[in-house]
Amino acid sequence: MRAQIITIGDELLIGQVVDTNSAWIGMRLNEIGIDVVKILSISDNHHQIIDTISDAMDSVDIVLITGGLGPTKDDITLNALCEYFDTHLVLSEDVLLNIKRVLGDRISLNPLNQSQAMVPNDCEVLNNRVGTAPATWFERNGKYLISMPGVPQEMKVIMSEEILPRLVKVSSNNYIIHRNFLVTNIPESFIAQQLESWESALPECLKLAYLPSLGYVKLRLTAHGTDEGLLNKTLRQYGRELQNLLGSNVIDNIDVSLEEYLGNCINHLGLTLSTAESCTGGNIASRITSVAGCSHYYKGSVVAYSNEVKMNVLKVAPVILEKYGAVSEQTVIAMVENVKELLGTNCAIATSGIAGPDGGTLEKPVGTIWIAVSYNDVTRTFKQEINRGREINVERAVNAAFLMLINMLQAGKTVC
Amino acid sequence: MRAQIITIGDELLIGQVVDTNSAWIGMRLNEIGIDVVKILSISDNHHQIIDTISDAMDSVDIVLITGGLGPTKDDITLNALCEYFDTHLVLSEDVLLNIKRVLGDRISLNPLNQSQAMVPNDCEVLNNRVGTAPATWFERNGKYLISMPGVPQEMKVIMSEEILPRLVKVSSNNYIIHRNFLVTNIPESFIAQQLESWESALPECLKLAYLPSLGYVKLRLTAHGTDEGLLNKTLRQYGRELQNLLGSNVIDNIDVSLEEYLGNCINHLGLTLSTAESCTGGNIASRITSVAGCSHYYKGSVVAYSNEVKMNVLKVAPVILEKYGAVSEQTVIAMVENVKELLGTNCAIATSGIAGPDGGTLEKPVGTIWIAVSYNDVTRTFKQEINRGREINVERAVNAAFLMLINMLQAGKTVC
Repeated sequence: MRAQIITIGDELLIGQVVDTNSAWIGMRLNEIGIDVVKILSISDNHHQIIDTISDAMDSVDIVLITGGLGPTKDDITLNALCEYFDTHLVLSEDVLLNIKRVLGDRISLNPLNQSQAMVPNDCEVLNNRVGTAPATWFERNGKYLISMPGVPQEMKVIMSEEILPRLVKVSSNNYIIHRNFLVTNIPESFIAQQLESWESALPECLKLAYLPSLGYVKLRLTAHGTDEGLLNKTLRQYGRELQNLLGSNVIDNIDVSLEEYLGNCINHLGLTLSTAESCTGGNIASRITSVAGCSHYYKGSVVAYSNEVKMNVLKVAPVILEKYGAVSEQTVIAMVENVKELLGTNCAIATSGIAGPDGGTLEKPVGTIWIAVSYNDVTRTFKQEINRGREINVERAVNAAFLMLINMLQAGKTVC
Repeated sequence: MRAQIITIGDELLIGQVVDTNSAWIGMRLNEIGIDVVKILSISDNHHQIIDTISDAMDSVDIVLITGGLGPTKDDITLNALCEYFDTHLVLSEDVLLNIKRVLGDRISLNPLNQSQAMVPNDCEVLNNRVGTAPATWFERNGKYLISMPGVPQEMKVIMSEEILPRLVKVSSNNYIIHRNFLVTNIPESFIAQQLESWESALPECLKLAYLPSLGYVKLRLTAHGTDEGLLNKTLRQYGRELQNLLGSNVIDNIDVSLEEYLGNCINHLGLTLSTAESCTGGNIASRITSVAGCSHYYKGSVVAYSNEVKMNVLKVAPVILEKYGAVSEQTVIAMVENVKELLGTNCAIATSGIAGPDGGTLEKPVGTIWIAVSYNDVTRTFKQEINRGREINVERAVNAAFLMLINMLQAGKTVC
């Protein structure tokens, strides 16, 4: 079955709020075999809401809407639904009770809160366990329209507990199964070249997507059909072929972020990690610590943005800094080995470079970033070059450092 | 003028990637007085792309597209544009040169890279300073279609440097002038209450927008009209009135990020800064170092994610950690004062808390974060409470720390 997602609210159009609801809903629908063909964000405008709903109901089987259910005057979704479905609002005692429960004793019910108990007739009303605005479920001629609150935390609860189980029942038995591969060391265009004839010969039920990031490319192989067992078998077979074609540059089955994957590797091997950052300025630490539970393996970082900190805290010998400069292989090796010792870890990452926009020289232009990773007694280095702007230079270096350490940890091991 | 934003890519529809481009573009267009009326995300499908473009060009003046410009088979935006505009691809030597520059010496050009130099005829091609895919600018019958790369970092550079200046020119002869105020210590609903009658009496040419962030609210006063001098005068007058109404909680004229504003304050006073982070895990350092030129005042950070690092590197006395715990006012004071000494700076920031989702206790629940800021001999602390999830808890703490230090630096000074 095919679906459209419609998110309603002026705040989305002026960029005050990023629409994260659609991606979350898209992922959940995809998991149960429902194809999202379009996502739309529109304003709190009666006519635009009705026109958009009307177009959507004409072209897909399922329409999911979030937003416009609050108690204030710019919340007009239910009125628009009543006009579109030719019905009217009625008071729901169930919803009123729920509103009283959610607001609790501390907030007395005012007319605006009470208005949220007015719901469309001729639809199923699904109470909101964690908020005051209910969801509504319309079925007409084998098509479905579901309206949900826009607050992401509320939408997620009502979608998980009420909507998804109903959608699984009404949708067909199609399966959509994904397998993700991470490819390093080969630019997207070269991967595409290597896979060209294989990709053209993929069976109808398989589709390959390229998702390039800075320093690596994710490939997503998607199987689509009614026989789950057959799809899994087909995915395994073509997944193996893909890996054979791309060789050792592929990490199989990676469906988390790079930092979470690295964290899992380190944790799985019972290791610990520290970092010493110059030009990446805390970006390595903040990416690592974005993963909940990282305190099991991550000890900390010395962000050595100045040479004094490199010397006084990281104990990089002044003679190294004088002879080779802060942006050098020798400095970054000293940083990685010293931070490993200082913080008492098995693994470490260090960076030193010129992120830009200023500070480059003829010999060391902006974009030159030295990276070192160390695991037990082995230290490896890499010199990143090419200037793509401060933000990208830093993000590329962080990704490169994570991939270097993942490679080191995986070398000679079957599982990380 | 009215605009639609179209983002292209299957990864958006299956929720693998959150569309952050649209919100960013929406905000930028809003700033120059262009109304975004709809945002659409669609798949990498030739017919859907053409149908969507066609609808958009029929209904608005400006259509902005991101995505589908990579070198692989699923990148089909330019072909769709050629069909829609009844034109064909031609080789651009300029773009080819840029691709060679961006790829650098280490990667030799293959036919797929080269294919990115094939651009539609009958349009203006805008080279991409930080990537290989160019932007294209079509003008037909007083309407505009602009296609940009989907990689956010690349889109932002090309939009800021090339597209926005052109859109300002074509959008009208009107002047749009903004003045931003940052309000701390008052929740949005209370600000609205305090400003209610003043806001209702604003002249036609002025508009007030509320932009709430974590821990502060930005108010944007926008003047719109044809007489630049008059607009500036009106803005100054009403800006003063707004400040009088909100008192000392307002920072005037802040049109940069919090970290850049703090950096300017520190630099202007000839001071230096260091940081010691526990639960914020490098986020303070990475925000500070996102500002180009920060090496003039920022020395570095000790990210002390474990107690050993707090003791061994930051020299926090074990007795403090034992007696009060790592998440305590005493610990965060020791951290801020020790890092200031260790890194030899005048100012310092330190944090220690429980970001979540685990690690809370009855006495110190998840979300408890102690913040300390120090300037010369004075140290101030703040205990952030309420759990809003790991990511939000950390971001709120970083903002709170920056605002605390800004307040300290501005106290008793006319200009920062």
